Amino acid sequence: MMTKDDVALMILEAKRTTGLTWEEIADKIGMSPVFTHSACVGMNAFPPAKADELVKLLALPQEAALVLSESPTKNFAQTVPTDPCIYRFYEIVGVYGPTLKALIQEKFGDGIMSAIDFDMTVTRVPNPKGDRVKVEMSGKYLQYSAW
Amino acid sequence: MMTKDDVALMILEAKRTTGLTWEEIADKIGMSPVFTHSACVGMNAFPPAKADELVKLLALPQEAALVLSESPTKNFAQTVPTDPCIYRFYEIVGVYGPTLKALIQEKFGDGIMSAIDFDMTVTRVPNPKGDRVKVEMSGKYLQYSAW
Amino acid sequence: MMTKDDVALMILEAKRTTGLTWEEIADKIGMSPVFTHSACVGMNAFPPAKADELVKLLALPQEAALVLSESPTKNFAQTVPTDPCIYRFYEIVGVYGPTLKALIQEKFGDGIMSAIDFDMTVTRVPNPKGDRVKVEMSGKYLQYSAW
Amino acid sequence: MMTKDDVALMILEAKRTTGLTWEEIADKIGMSPVFTHSACVGMNAFPPAKADELVKLLALPQEAALVLSESPTKNFAQTVPTDPCIYRFYEIVGVYGPTLKALIQEKFGDGIMSAIDFDMTVTRVPNPKGDRVKVEMSGKYLQYSAW
Amino acid sequence: MMTKDDVALMILEAKRTTGLTWEEIADKIGMSPVFTHSACVGMNAFPPAKADELVKLLALPQEAALVLSESPTKNFAQTVPTDPCIYRFYEIVGVYGPTLKALIQEKFGDGIMSAIDFDMTVTRVPNPKGDRVKVEMSGKYLQYSAW
Amino acid sequence: MMTKDDVALMILEAKRTTGLTWEEIADKIGMSPVFTHSACVGMNAFPPAKADELVKLLALPQEAALVLSESPTKNFAQTVPTDPCIYRFYEIVGVYGPTLKALIQEKFGDGIMSAIDFDMTVTRVPNPKGDRVKVEMSGKYLQYSAW
Amino acid sequence: MMTKDDVALMILEAKRTTGLTWEEIADKIGMSPVFTHSACVGMNAFPPAKADELVKLLALPQEAALVLSESPTKNFAQTVPTDPCIYRFYEIVGVYGPTLKALIQEKFGDGIMSAIDFDMTVTRVPNPKGDRVKVEMSGKYLQYSAW
Amino acid sequence: MMTKDDVALMILEAKRTTGLTWEEIADKIGMSPVFTHSACVGMNAFPPAKADELVKLLALPQEAALVLSESPTKNFAQTVPTDPCIYRFYEIVGVYGPTLKALIQEKFGDGIMSAIDFDMTVTRVPNPKGDRVKVEMSGKYLQYSAW
Amino acid sequence: MMTKDDVALMILEAKRTTGLTWEEIADKIGMSPVFTHSACVGMNAFPPAKADELVKLLALPQEAALVLSESPTKNFAQTVPTDPCIYRFYEIVGVYGPTLKALIQEKFGDGIMSAIDFDMTVTRVPNPKGDRVKVEMSGKYLQYSAW
Amino acid sequence: MMTKDDVALMILEAKRTTGLTWEEIADKIGMSPVFTHSACVGMNAFPPAKADELVKLLALPQEAALVLSESPTKNFAQTVPTDPCIYRFYEIVGVYGPTLKALIQEKFGDGIMSAIDFDMTVTRVPNPKGDRVKVEMSGKYLQYSAW
Repeated sequence: MMTKDDVALMILEAKRTTGLTWEEIADKIGMSPVFTHSACVGMNAFPPAKADELVKLLALPQEAALVLSESPTKNFAQTVPTDPCIYRFYEIVGVYGPTLKALIQEKFGDGIMSAIDFDMTVTRVPNPKGDRVKVEMSGKYLQYSAW
Repeated sequence: MMTKDDVALMILEAKRTTGLTWEEIADKIGMSPVFTHSACVGMNAFPPAKADELVKLLALPQEAALVLSESPTKNFAQTVPTDPCIYRFYEIVGVYGPTLKALIQEKFGDGIMSAIDFDMTVTRVPNPKGDRVKVEMSGKYLQYSAW
Repeated sequence: MMTKDDVALMILEAKRTTGLTWEEIADKIGMSPVFTHSACVGMNAFPPAKADELVKLLALPQEAALVLSESPTKNFAQTVPTDPCIYRFYEIVGVYGPTLKALIQEKFGDGIMSAIDFDMTVTRVPNPKGDRVKVEMSGKYLQYSAW
Repeated sequence: MMTKDDVALMILEAKRTTGLTWEEIADKIGMSPVFTHSACVGMNAFPPAKADELVKLLALPQEAALVLSESPTKNFAQTVPTDPCIYRFYEIVGVYGPTLKALIQEKFGDGIMSAIDFDMTVTRVPNPKGDRVKVEMSGKYLQYSAW
Repeated sequence: MMTKDDVALMILEAKRTTGLTWEEIADKIGMSPVFTHSACVGMNAFPPAKADELVKLLALPQEAALVLSESPTKNFAQTVPTDPCIYRFYEIVGVYGPTLKALIQEKFGDGIMSAIDFDMTVTRVPNPKGDRVKVEMSGKYLQYSAW
Repeated sequence: MMTKDDVALMILEAKRTTGLTWEEIADKIGMSPVFTHSACVGMNAFPPAKADELVKLLALPQEAALVLSESPTKNFAQTVPTDPCIYRFYEIVGVYGPTLKALIQEKFGDGIMSAIDFDMTVTRVPNPKGDRVKVEMSGKYLQYSAW
Repeated sequence: MMTKDDVALMILEAKRTTGLTWEEIADKIGMSPVFTHSACVGMNAFPPAKADELVKLLALPQEAALVLSESPTKNFAQTVPTDPCIYRFYEIVGVYGPTLKALIQEKFGDGIMSAIDFDMTVTRVPNPKGDRVKVEMSGKYLQYSAW
Repeated sequence: MMTKDDVALMILEAKRTTGLTWEEIADKIGMSPVFTHSACVGMNAFPPAKADELVKLLALPQEAALVLSESPTKNFAQTVPTDPCIYRFYEIVGVYGPTLKALIQEKFGDGIMSAIDFDMTVTRVPNPKGDRVKVEMSGKYLQYSAW
Repeated sequence: MMTKDDVALMILEAKRTTGLTWEEIADKIGMSPVFTHSACVGMNAFPPAKADELVKLLALPQEAALVLSESPTKNFAQTVPTDPCIYRFYEIVGVYGPTLKALIQEKFGDGIMSAIDFDMTVTRVPNPKGDRVKVEMSGKYLQYSAW
Repeated sequence: MMTKDDVALMILEAKRTTGLTWEEIADKIGMSPVFTHSACVGMNAFPPAKADELVKLLALPQEAALVLSESPTKNFAQTVPTDPCIYRFYEIVGVYGPTLKALIQEKFGDGIMSAIDFDMTVTRVPNPKGDRVKVEMSGKYLQYSAW
């Protein structure tokens, strides 16, 4: 049975062969780069029409479209990530977590930012002292119930 | 010896007494709310002049200014945070970590976003379907050396 | 500075003295027993008016009302609970977690049950073979974004 | 030797081929959807007659019926689940565990809800503010012995 | 507020002063030694009448009887015990756990031995090659539901 | 090289084919059911003569007898078992461990029950309120040296 | 209630005051240095007569003798020791554990070295290339039962 | 590429075929049994001449000699060993670690026993009360630098 | 799809065949030995021209050059390394970590040494008391932002 | 009894009062800054004469000199450090550990760099692109025994 891991591997191979970037792939199917990469590696589900477009773009077998639009099980193996690029985000959550919580509560009340009704972008910002990575997250505010 | 924990407690008490918000405190000392909260709870060091302003604003003992401008040891006790508001950010790193890495490398090369030369904001974005939390992170791109 | 732990202890003492049950306390302040217990032990925030009512009911100091309505930090110390009564719920999540996920996705699509816009009840159901504990959870369905 | 994992895979393939939902499969063999899914993925044992019906319904090899009715070893690999849909239930146990315990003891005495003599349902409840997931658990109350 | 830990300490002191053994204490209040020790150190709740007898026997303050009959939260701090006497039992569960499971299922069906409707004894068995410790556990068989 | 895992699998297949129970297998080779199961799954070593009998009984290849009588390495993978039937025994050790220790020391002195010079039985005890699982462990008392 | 930790502290203070070495203390009470240190820090129980001698030697309160002869609970907090002197022994067990097991089984059969009926010495061995630490452990061989 | 694991397996097979003991193998190549076993299973590197002798003795392919004399990476998978024979040594380190440290420091100064410039023997010591396992470790004393 | 693990294995085989040292390989491609080894085993990315040189030097397939210049995911599996040679560096970080931090802050201000804009060398330093390993690390100082 | 933690606190207070840097303190007592800081915070033992000098320099009570020269137990609480400045060194060990091992073995043979016969310096190296932190470690090479 074709799995999300199988399809991710096919996509990586097609990407190496075609020389397409994630940004180009995303543009061609009309989705954002963050969501596109995430769904390609099996951490999100493409809307069926987008899965079809991707399959055509990269010449994958048709069954892959079905797999790409199934709900994934989002398992991440490392409790604390070791790759430095990913660890820095983990560190930011560790250091600034209580600050994010305090400011969200000050601005909204007792609640959280949703990680489900959520989107994110990554941008390169030119800067004479060295270009900067800009990450923007946006999630719906969810208020705790009291009942 | 007065510690950063002692001072954090004094600040929280003064904040409860005065009714000031983190945003107001930040405004009055001319720093951002994220940095202000973080340095107040002992996860960052205030520039000495800012520490002095804060101490005056909240009527803390003068020794507190010294403590607030010392380099902190950034210990966070929970490897995986349990508070739902903080956990959601941890989850985002777990789910989207490889995506952030892939897009940073596509846009910049082999490197990372710095968590040291770094700043962050939290904003409330009105939305008819429910207001949204916007978190913007900006960190200097650091290229891996090859030597 | 009076903390949520301090107030929880005052409430437990008042409860022992007055002989009130959680259900009676909840009834008198017009909240559900689950939410009432949870907010009393510091895992939820009472609406200010309810905090006032509780403080009057149990003759707590007025400052306690302020504390009871502040946003809590929901830290739970045991990654795997050891108390048998709590462990059984952990076990149910371990054994039936993939089943809950599969059925939610079948009935709703790619998303989750919110643990924030959420409520719960506990009921005793008479049964000739031995009475049963009934736990009902209700959470808003949240659909994953695709963007 | 055919294992529960082998059979689970056959079922998932047959399900994809036939287009049957878990609810339809459960209806056809006269079991609940929660139990049916759980036993199909190897976390419960079907009564032999039900295993036979399932094998016929999905055209599995006859040996699968034997496997489906054997007692499973309920191993779950993640101490803390990472999939957001499952994690939310873990979080509920962490946040509300002491509350569940306090209310069970108030209503019944010193004991627990059984996770063995236990059943569960998942329902979609329409709601103008967004439909809700309803999970109902029912387990026999078990009183601690004193001897 | 007097806690189970406070009372356990009072009992240990009274035991040292009076020179009574656990077996003698158990005999005098008409409970088994295993249950008596366990409830004295806060891992079980005495029936109220037994708590009263114990309080009289050891001349504890009357409030202790109330504490001794409250439902305990059974927290054990070490996931893997280090004391050799306790570790050996942990090792037996690790080595013989699958065997206990296989034989219970062979003799009863798909189910478990209850750890709630449960009792245990410890006996010294004379033996010319060295006396032996005999531990007898008895728990009600609980059959998994199928629904 | 034939391993204990290979042989365990052969035995499970032979058991399924022949329909023999563990108790019947044990009877036929004149060992107890607990030891027999444990040695078949690779957690104990059969005396060579018993290994020979087993190999004949189940028509295994002769090399299996050699493997069955080799000293095993007793690795158990889960620090905390997740299968409910096994977990309950873990829980008993967690809750009653200090009690077992206290009573062993009261009856014997400063020492432990051996888990090596050790045997165990599992019995079904009829009971009108529900049959009970009886587990009897017997281990040699070992006194700590003082030197 | 005087605890083993209290007494260990008294002994360390008396040792600092009197300038006695562990070896001298051991000699004066007629026990080995390893056992003496271990029992002084609360990891073993002195025979009552030896506890009395130690109490006299170091002028401790008489109650300390009772405490020193009680059975200890041997809790060690670090699963993996961090002190380099202790870690090296941990490393030896990790690297040579399977070797120790293989040679014990080759020389004795299927069994273990007891850590209870056990003694140990530490000696300084002069060596022109640098003196050496010699550690000798001796434990009774225990044969696994087969029953 | 032939690995140390591959060679270890060849040696175990040759050992089973030839019936040689570890002690005999060690004697024939003129190394100690502890070192011989350890290097055979990949936890130490044989001097090239000894690797050659071993390869001849057991009729292994010549490439194995190269592999046997390469520096190993000493990975041990279990932080806390579960095999009872190995666990007992872990337990000894946990219980007696601080004692070993105290006595080494008393006899030598501030330093440790090397686990690198190190050797070990295992001996069977006849004893009328039951033969004993004797383990002797010898490591060079290493003094901490002060600079 | 050829992976970094595949290429690392090819390099190790070529290295064994050719008898080249890491230092010689590094010299021939004009990179340092530390960086060369690290990029060969998949923990760093070679500049494309260097990857080409290496592929020619060791007669690897041309696709390997592409793989060697891709950004790696730096996963290290052991949270605490067990190999003694690597563990000693871990221990140095544990023991001297707070010292490194204090001295960096004293010399530079509130910041860190970069592990990204970073290089390292390993040298053999002759010494009559025994040659010494010299490790030199150099990383760019990064100052914490205050904003 | 005065402990190393007590003395560390006294030193930090004296340092804040006198305004001395670690480098100045080290210079005045003729030790290196790394060793001085490390021994002041309780991770190394000062030679008695140096402890005396330090006590005089900072006007500490005389008993502190005794404490500063006692062998410390080097416990570090965080298995994975969270402070970014310390974490980066941990990350370097994780990423470059196998490289350090490979190069040490290539230059010396099968052995390790001692972390006991060891010294370290931290230097600020001016650099037009941003000053750099230089860390130099030197440890005696220790060859594995073969016996």
